[in-house]
Amino acid sequence: MKHIQSRDNAQFKQLRKLATTARARREAGQTLIDGAHLFRSALEAGARPRMALVAERALHQPEIASLLAGQEVLLLADALFDELSVTDTPAGLLGLVDLPPEPEGAVSGDCLVLDAVQDAGNLGTLLRAAWATGVHDVLLTTGCAQAWSPKVLRSGQGAHFSLRIREHCDVASLLAGYPGRIVATRLDARGALYDLDLRGPVAWLFGNEGAGLSPALAALATDAVIIPMPGSAESLNVAMAATVCLFEQARQRRPG
Amino acid sequence: MKHIQSRDNAQFKQLRKLATTARARREAGQTLIDGAHLFRSALEAGARPRMALVAERALHQPEIASLLAGQEVLLLADALFDELSVTDTPAGLLGLVDLPPEPEGAVSGDCLVLDAVQDAGNLGTLLRAAWATGVHDVLLTTGCAQAWSPKVLRSGQGAHFSLRIREHCDVASLLAGYPGRIVATRLDARGALYDLDLRGPVAWLFGNEGAGLSPALAALATDAVIIPMPGSAESLNVAMAATVCLFEQARQRRPG
Repeated sequence: MKHIQSRDNAQFKQLRKLATTARARREAGQTLIDGAHLFRSALEAGARPRMALVAERALHQPEIASLLAGQEVLLLADALFDELSVTDTPAGLLGLVDLPPEPEGAVSGDCLVLDAVQDAGNLGTLLRAAWATGVHDVLLTTGCAQAWSPKVLRSGQGAHFSLRIREHCDVASLLAGYPGRIVATRLDARGALYDLDLRGPVAWLFGNEGAGLSPALAALATDAVIIPMPGSAESLNVAMAATVCLFEQARQRRPG
Repeated sequence: MKHIQSRDNAQFKQLRKLATTARARREAGQTLIDGAHLFRSALEAGARPRMALVAERALHQPEIASLLAGQEVLLLADALFDELSVTDTPAGLLGLVDLPPEPEGAVSGDCLVLDAVQDAGNLGTLLRAAWATGVHDVLLTTGCAQAWSPKVLRSGQGAHFSLRIREHCDVASLLAGYPGRIVATRLDARGALYDLDLRGPVAWLFGNEGAGLSPALAALATDAVIIPMPGSAESLNVAMAATVCLFEQARQRRPG
């Protein structure tokens, strides 16, 4: 088992780049997944980590040890490990995984289109909502946070491994000829979410936390709806709004 | 205008305690709200801050300056201000506000009961969902994060000022004689959320991020429901689950 104890180690320096910069992850075609839960999710989804990075303090913890069978293990001094983790209280296990190949071909089923969603927690929650409701395709514009960053992966709780995620999308091209509704939520829309028939394929458009959808994206919508709110909240955050919409779609499709 | 430039200043030390410890906030009966948006929300809700704390760099920013009319202002060296802020990129404005008196009396309308919800972001999002859907009463058990911590306030985006929040609740006593359904979500429940009549008053029970509801709380439920999920997500996080439930309640109550 290889053991790194120095911050000057070249492999550690490369791992730190992967942990901290989107560019390094893109160039290497690799990312880091943080924690035992995500590591297990990756294994179960067939996205076998290339390597397990383990903190010295965690090597003999049963939950972590049970995941290391057949894995190449890189042992790291605790302080070095903690520099690679995205959590405040690192669990002691990271996985080095390959980025999957970008999905290709037209989009014809349900999809979630995210325009410049910048907060890692929001982006992960959005992916989780898609996963929970059986929406497989996710299209991200260039302004979004990197879907495969360790923080977004962590917030997604395993969603990534079941979705077809495309980044830096030309959404207009991908949705040209889309066979279903293209739906945006708008505070000034007339129709309510619940009055729209969502049983056919739907491409859902959600925008940036502050600015909302860009005009170019908003122009693609075939339907605009408001999420009725009996209370006084000015607006929901984007992850909550998408959760409401995707579960309403699931509700309308229930058998019987 | 008073100006603090030294970390040794006694008032600064007290403010730092308020920023960082639940106990100091409870003892002083005060908390800090972070950022111009929340400061404005407090003003609009009639929860006038006792004092505005402003970073030197922010004193002449128009958005912040416009909020300072009639306020007692405490100017802080930038580095000191940043120690009081909960955000990674502090806006430069904090408000010192009094904690409101704890609501009293029986609970008879819709309410959200949260058992040991520990993540500040989740707790704030849950309060926001209640606010958006017109649920006014929120009961928190002792294991919950402090509702009035700067982080939860920030995540709540103003929800706090419209809700009746009670902490350290004896939920069983407060819900004794509750006139409506008391509903828990459970992964093994038989009935689906959408099949339950939610038009009368509902007390919603949601539990800890890992452990769920404590047995004592779960035993109070008159109804248990599952949130049907066509996808493969193991479970939703607590804030998403509550968002789905509270909006389903709002949907069922739409006029017409």
